[in-house]
Amino acid sequence: MPHRYFTNEINGNMAALSKEDSRHFACVMRGKTGEELVLCNGSGTDYLAKTVSVLPEKVDLEIISCSKSVSEATIGVTLYIGYPKSDKLEQILQKGTELGAVKFVPFFNKFCVVKPKNELEKNKRYNKIVYEAAKQSGRGTIPTVEMPLEYDEMLKQATKHDAAFFCYEGGGDSLHSRLSTAKAVSVITGSEGGFSRPDFEKALNSGCIPIGLGNRILRCETAPIAALAAIMTLTGNLQ
Amino acid sequence: MPHRYFTNEINGNMAALSKEDSRHFACVMRGKTGEELVLCNGSGTDYLAKTVSVLPEKVDLEIISCSKSVSEATIGVTLYIGYPKSDKLEQILQKGTELGAVKFVPFFNKFCVVKPKNELEKNKRYNKIVYEAAKQSGRGTIPTVEMPLEYDEMLKQATKHDAAFFCYEGGGDSLHSRLSTAKAVSVITGSEGGFSRPDFEKALNSGCIPIGLGNRILRCETAPIAALAAIMTLTGNLQ
Repeated sequence: MPHRYFTNEINGNMAALSKEDSRHFACVMRGKTGEELVLCNGSGTDYLAKTVSVLPEKVDLEIISCSKSVSEATIGVTLYIGYPKSDKLEQILQKGTELGAVKFVPFFNKFCVVKPKNELEKNKRYNKIVYEAAKQSGRGTIPTVEMPLEYDEMLKQATKHDAAFFCYEGGGDSLHSRLSTAKAVSVITGSEGGFSRPDFEKALNSGCIPIGLGNRILRCETAPIAALAAIMTLTGNLQ
Repeated sequence: MPHRYFTNEINGNMAALSKEDSRHFACVMRGKTGEELVLCNGSGTDYLAKTVSVLPEKVDLEIISCSKSVSEATIGVTLYIGYPKSDKLEQILQKGTELGAVKFVPFFNKFCVVKPKNELEKNKRYNKIVYEAAKQSGRGTIPTVEMPLEYDEMLKQATKHDAAFFCYEGGGDSLHSRLSTAKAVSVITGSEGGFSRPDFEKALNSGCIPIGLGNRILRCETAPIAALAAIMTLTGNLQ
């Protein structure tokens, strides 16, 4: 299978890799002229292309054909993630990208142990992680990681989608029954401390749908991935 | 919610914590006499019990009531895992336990980078990880981690279950269509290198069912967790 690269530099039937990817292809992959690559514009179109010039600072390609990327899910899932400790957010971003999420929004609430610190810098790193995971897993678009929100603001955003699923240890509806016609949904999961009762009630009042994820207690980095896999399964995107 | 402990020391209406858990309850949790705990015998029964004597070397309890654990899934899933690098196996064991797998079997095949080394010692550590995850997630039984197998031996074991799902990047059936009456199933996923074509054909000839997990390429530590979540979703165990 040809290697995949995202690029914005596609003009007519010619294209180029970014500076960083050019160096990677020329120096790390030891790529040669005449090799086939798949280029992706990050908006759902894949291009089969052949290298016509390979230099460490710039790789030029000629486009052979293009087609709609088949790797995007038919449902847009945004994960709203209670900001967890250590590298758990990175794990969620990486696995969530592989499993087809379109957006990630960390949030702070009462039981979060983590406090905001260098978030602008961290956000750049988070988006880089997602970019790499999108490249590696063959995504047709690059998901985004938003800047973290406060709880109330998060609820306001999350409930704008067709359905906002609130994963609560107290259980709730099955996802099954609430996915029928939804095209864009939110999944809200807590940090290590979970949600307080007032947080839960606020979510209900905002129109969130409480859902259960079974009788076992899932870690905060497992719950969003399990919910995402469940949604992808139920909508035929994991087969 | 009362804390949970696994113990083998249940006799009539009296019980005790293990030496290690006694120290944990007495010294770390600063537990007191008269506190309620949930004891689990590891075979699917939960006991509500009250501490009658708390010493760092032994905690004695009186049993108040017992009930069948509700946290075991209605389907027994064994994960056969191509032995991955670094701490990925640990991640799979931990998350797989939370999501209800009953057994884990690492295996070696052609494309495994890892070679067997100190496996007896590692196996003890792996079982310890699963034990801790079972305690934390409220499992009613403790899953086991078997010693790693060679590929052929793995296929022989895996195909003894009602269905052996072979996750292959080339795709295959949907899980959906093959789960109807199965009570015990195997899920086989590869290590970083995936499977060679001869490995795949051997699996088919052994009776494995090739399944696809969507159009995105999943990392070797994501695939077993996604397949497990999908099976639990389709059998009503993740709601």
